[in-house]
Amino acid sequence: MSSKGTVVLAYSGGLDTSCILVWLKEQGYDVITYLANIGQDEDFEAARKKAESLGAKKVFIDDLRSEFVEEFIWPSVQANAMYEDRYLLGTSIARPCIARRQVQIARQEGAQFVSHGATGKGNDQIRFELTCYALYPEVKIIAPWRIPEFYNRFRGRKDLMEYAESHAPSDLYLMTKNPEDAPNTPDELEIEFKKGVPVKVTHLKEGKTKDTPLDIFCYLNEVGGKHGIGRIDIVENRFIGMKSRGIYETPGGTILYHAHLDIETFTMDREVRRIKQGLGIKFSELLYNGFWYSPECEFVRHCIDKSQENVEGKVQLSVFKGHVYILGRESPSSLYNEELVSMDVQGDYDPCDASGFIRINAVRLREHHRLQGEAQLKQ
Amino acid sequence: MSSKGTVVLAYSGGLDTSCILVWLKEQGYDVITYLANIGQDEDFEAARKKAESLGAKKVFIDDLRSEFVEEFIWPSVQANAMYEDRYLLGTSIARPCIARRQVQIARQEGAQFVSHGATGKGNDQIRFELTCYALYPEVKIIAPWRIPEFYNRFRGRKDLMEYAESHAPSDLYLMTKNPEDAPNTPDELEIEFKKGVPVKVTHLKEGKTKDTPLDIFCYLNEVGGKHGIGRIDIVENRFIGMKSRGIYETPGGTILYHAHLDIETFTMDREVRRIKQGLGIKFSELLYNGFWYSPECEFVRHCIDKSQENVEGKVQLSVFKGHVYILGRESPSSLYNEELVSMDVQGDYDPCDASGFIRINAVRLREHHRLQGEAQLKQ
Amino acid sequence: MSSKGTVVLAYSGGLDTSCILVWLKEQGYDVITYLANIGQDEDFEAARKKAESLGAKKVFIDDLRSEFVEEFIWPSVQANAMYEDRYLLGTSIARPCIARRQVQIARQEGAQFVSHGATGKGNDQIRFELTCYALYPEVKIIAPWRIPEFYNRFRGRKDLMEYAESHAPSDLYLMTKNPEDAPNTPDELEIEFKKGVPVKVTHLKEGKTKDTPLDIFCYLNEVGGKHGIGRIDIVENRFIGMKSRGIYETPGGTILYHAHLDIETFTMDREVRRIKQGLGIKFSELLYNGFWYSPECEFVRHCIDKSQENVEGKVQLSVFKGHVYILGRESPSSLYNEELVSMDVQGDYDPCDASGFIRINAVRLREHHRLQGEAQLKQ
Amino acid sequence: MSSKGTVVLAYSGGLDTSCILVWLKEQGYDVITYLANIGQDEDFEAARKKAESLGAKKVFIDDLRSEFVEEFIWPSVQANAMYEDRYLLGTSIARPCIARRQVQIARQEGAQFVSHGATGKGNDQIRFELTCYALYPEVKIIAPWRIPEFYNRFRGRKDLMEYAESHAPSDLYLMTKNPEDAPNTPDELEIEFKKGVPVKVTHLKEGKTKDTPLDIFCYLNEVGGKHGIGRIDIVENRFIGMKSRGIYETPGGTILYHAHLDIETFTMDREVRRIKQGLGIKFSELLYNGFWYSPECEFVRHCIDKSQENVEGKVQLSVFKGHVYILGRESPSSLYNEELVSMDVQGDYDPCDASGFIRINAVRLREHHRLQGEAQLKQ
Repeated sequence: MSSKGTVVLAYSGGLDTSCILVWLKEQGYDVITYLANIGQDEDFEAARKKAESLGAKKVFIDDLRSEFVEEFIWPSVQANAMYEDRYLLGTSIARPCIARRQVQIARQEGAQFVSHGATGKGNDQIRFELTCYALYPEVKIIAPWRIPEFYNRFRGRKDLMEYAESHAPSDLYLMTKNPEDAPNTPDELEIEFKKGVPVKVTHLKEGKTKDTPLDIFCYLNEVGGKHGIGRIDIVENRFIGMKSRGIYETPGGTILYHAHLDIETFTMDREVRRIKQGLGIKFSELLYNGFWYSPECEFVRHCIDKSQENVEGKVQLSVFKGHVYILGRESPSSLYNEELVSMDVQGDYDPCDASGFIRINAVRLREHHRLQGEAQLKQ
Repeated sequence: MSSKGTVVLAYSGGLDTSCILVWLKEQGYDVITYLANIGQDEDFEAARKKAESLGAKKVFIDDLRSEFVEEFIWPSVQANAMYEDRYLLGTSIARPCIARRQVQIARQEGAQFVSHGATGKGNDQIRFELTCYALYPEVKIIAPWRIPEFYNRFRGRKDLMEYAESHAPSDLYLMTKNPEDAPNTPDELEIEFKKGVPVKVTHLKEGKTKDTPLDIFCYLNEVGGKHGIGRIDIVENRFIGMKSRGIYETPGGTILYHAHLDIETFTMDREVRRIKQGLGIKFSELLYNGFWYSPECEFVRHCIDKSQENVEGKVQLSVFKGHVYILGRESPSSLYNEELVSMDVQGDYDPCDASGFIRINAVRLREHHRLQGEAQLKQ
Repeated sequence: MSSKGTVVLAYSGGLDTSCILVWLKEQGYDVITYLANIGQDEDFEAARKKAESLGAKKVFIDDLRSEFVEEFIWPSVQANAMYEDRYLLGTSIARPCIARRQVQIARQEGAQFVSHGATGKGNDQIRFELTCYALYPEVKIIAPWRIPEFYNRFRGRKDLMEYAESHAPSDLYLMTKNPEDAPNTPDELEIEFKKGVPVKVTHLKEGKTKDTPLDIFCYLNEVGGKHGIGRIDIVENRFIGMKSRGIYETPGGTILYHAHLDIETFTMDREVRRIKQGLGIKFSELLYNGFWYSPECEFVRHCIDKSQENVEGKVQLSVFKGHVYILGRESPSSLYNEELVSMDVQGDYDPCDASGFIRINAVRLREHHRLQGEAQLKQ
Repeated sequence: MSSKGTVVLAYSGGLDTSCILVWLKEQGYDVITYLANIGQDEDFEAARKKAESLGAKKVFIDDLRSEFVEEFIWPSVQANAMYEDRYLLGTSIARPCIARRQVQIARQEGAQFVSHGATGKGNDQIRFELTCYALYPEVKIIAPWRIPEFYNRFRGRKDLMEYAESHAPSDLYLMTKNPEDAPNTPDELEIEFKKGVPVKVTHLKEGKTKDTPLDIFCYLNEVGGKHGIGRIDIVENRFIGMKSRGIYETPGGTILYHAHLDIETFTMDREVRRIKQGLGIKFSELLYNGFWYSPECEFVRHCIDKSQENVEGKVQLSVFKGHVYILGRESPSSLYNEELVSMDVQGDYDPCDASGFIRINAVRLREHHRLQGEAQLKQ
């Protein structure tokens, strides 16, 4: 049988995508597997061997960790990205990074098809495929979990895994300790930011420092994980319109969220921040829904990045039993003016101005009251 | 000397407003003092005696605790009110409650003047006065800390207090234990909501319950305080355009924030929530800036209240070493449909629809790419 | 052959839906046709006869004009609904009204299916079907223009019609005169509003009045049409992600838009208006995209309606050669206070307050400048 | 008497600022007058002589027309700037341009003071002074119309002028013809845009072209004025919280607003446009309130400018009897894809995808209905 063409399969090494690999071959495709290393705990060589043994024509295992941190996580830190006020979007951020490389491989290998193991009710299928369509518009996507002949055959197996996943949440946490079992003394860190991204982290007692993006991120995951930082159990709204339960752990991301928020408020003008807050919410929705590679997300990222020009300085914080405490901050570009705000020093500020400020702000309120009063009199 | 008129002074019993009391009398006013009980730790009878001994013509000490919780805190819980992503607005919420009663006293006692001890660089003067102007447009406000002859005379004393306040943060926490000293075992609570406000709290192990607004709020403050919940050290943007450092503790408010956020996401449609999120941010700014009694804040409160119609159910959570953990939730009006979201059951959902959904969402992205591609070819 | 079931077809009387009627019967369905009168120029009896002659089992012709104006157009007037700053959403507003009745018929007649003649690239299919799914979740929808066996067979015919439609824009205008041919003297109207909706229109010279919703709307269409009001030629963004050209005429809607905007700004607090403006933009997008019957649109409509409580008064305007000119307005609940704003009368307003207001607003700007200046010095 | 210092007075040549000039000298200041030419109809030499004869120490008359158009009007065109859905902000845009130069003169001449003739209830005082404080934080501002000794003395005169101004609206229009008296045949223009700003205007019949910013703007004012374009009579909300009546004419600005809106929608991605629309509303408020020189306005301008990168092409339009009609548009970077949107060509678009798109969008609506239905059953 002549080949239907070449498909680049996002391969995890697990049972699920192994079934897909075999099935795709059965259907007559040449299959190239691709496994991205974005920092997960994985035996990559075992996965390579498994893919080869199952008939992969070619196997790609790519270390995307640095680009993942620098090009995807850092902009999310700048944005204070958070979906529905709680979810730090860890998984969502990884998808466009993984899919971008997959598309590069497909183009380079002349493959017309890409495939993945995401299910038909989830967000990941969307994040994955929108990235593919955006970067490789002519690509054809094979999503076996949406193809009846596939899912009717393998559903039993999938059910089992899903069941295991959804009924064993305590085992779901891989990076974080249970806060109750975390150390009884906090660790204190100092994170230095430039243009809204961390450039250095220092363990204040041990003096240990990290100063490359990947090292910083890994170290924060490590310290945060040790203290049980960043576990959440939430119900969230999927893009396809369902609510689903999610259990997440984002130790490093949680620390960075708090630290960045602090240095940002310290250095950014109030009104710029307010506009940027709205852009950050928009960015979070786009990211969650899979629109990283969209004109609007590119636009929003540009604007957010612009807002970060003066977001620099150092934040001291402690992590302890699942919580992040901001201890202090300093910045060469701080807009915090101790003299201005102090009661001791009057300086250039005339408190009498406040009377005028308040009275002018009250003009509208008094007019409103006048009208309401008249309305009541008429009744 | 004939009286210049009657002034109702917001009196705390402390040195600061005692000075104002005496000064106002010196200036020729009859002074009525008014002290609101909104739950602070205060010797109200001592304050009464002090006011009388300093020459107050009349002394009002009013218990506003229930109306504070029901009319001011509850709407803020519904709104997930949070200023600049961190501050739960405790002080801000109290001001319109306190000032409303002061204005009622002024009207009832025929006083044309009201006075307060808020400083000339802060937010409280604004919150206080906008409320007064909104509810009693003809009122005349005496703000001694903005009157040169007063503040030049008393500044030394003020400096001292301010100094004490700003250089002794560890003593600032009155309600919350240091998380490091908090109990080594969590407390687990269940909070029941109806229309977005708590109607009952249950201590899951002890079986203790509270079911009036005031009792619920006090109990959450107590349990939260015991576990060091809700301490923050932030820099915030004041309405007058300065950045200032704030150290706050909001144990009960923090628990309610997390619990309400959880039950709201569980029961509210995604898109309603998104619109309501914007309204909540607006509400928080209005509240912070002192516009509780404004047409726009009334409008926003109405809209938010409307959004809460189906926000009911029970949230289980644990409090431990400064952190709130959501454990689970249940609701008769949940939009979470376990069957719909499950992989086991396909039900009415056809995964093939997702392909169309994704492809239509990609139409715009592919067009964008086409244009970008053309632009690149031209270069 | 036993029937596959009953389908309620939205029938226009034209060639297009007549083909669908016949094709549905060929496929084995019993077909009930339904034609809504929402004010279009149509020979309804001819349509009835045609449907019957083509084998419709039952024919519904329903006059929805009053409910269309009162329940759909009026809320859009309250919202100042406008898509992408230009399009007054005429067609979009009609869809949920038409589909709601279709679903009522389907339920009442025990039909499991509904069908329509909207094409597969347009917005109307979405508006139509989202309404059906929202109000009759179990319904099955037959959209022949998305079914290959149908559209491959009939495409030729469709092409012809589409071609005619898109290449003959001058004939597209049915209600409005060419402004160049419009009368050389304006007509002056007065529209009276209560709670944000028109309750009376008066022709100022002729003294003619209309005071039921349907009469008001028809009369404004008539007068507006005579003066060539409300023609636009735009490119718009469809929900499915394409840009398309649209040529619209909305004479009555355009007059109402301008009149309502005027009375609203006259009577509504500035900040309420600002929040409501955002809600109106949201409403317009929802309406355009077909989400009239969605929780978020219901929520937004409720909020907008609330904002209109005091929007009452009379607006005088003239229509002339395609343009609407606002001449004046009056209102019992106006927030316009001639005394307050006048230079002649100082009244309660102290101009000195403005100095304080401005200086406090400048605090932040001066701080920003200070920092920028320092940054420049360092360079 | 030794001089109190030097003040740079924004001088109009009229009675009003002439009084201020004399009064400032009386108060002991050296007065430098400054008159900006931003295109108004004025006898600048007469103004110079008058200022000199009244004792101005120095007289500046600066032609700011080009920088006004390029640096202030063009960004407003990019933003589709419009205050409260109607006002094109002509006056507001001019203030920061005028005040910037005034501050430059003050710095260059070593003047510590600036002064102006704006009244104490208006917006212009704020626009003027915020610009001054932002660019010259140490400056001292003398606003005579807010100084009792000045305004009590001159109020009579002011009243007269104000009276004249507010009771003679028909004379207020200086640039535009009454539409009823406008030509009976339209003029057709083509405006070419690059990066969201006009680079060329062509009179289609006469073949006349203009291609510098100032020429383009003047020409559009001329042609628009001839056809009575851009007159409005509105009630607006001032920053100080009052409503006031405003009568404006903006012929060139109105034409540019419509033309830019058209080319923008034609070339900009839908979702980018939506975000940019919000930024444009924000920009308009900032501009109206006098915050051109603020960190947030600089940020917003940057973002809007970024959004305009591909906004290029030509718009054809006609102006006739007070109305602007868009006739057509073309662009090398159009996102309008005739093939994609056409019914004739199916191309890459599969109409079946729309079914999935709609059904997935309906998931949430059906869930909502399910819950509402259950709620009703319980009642």
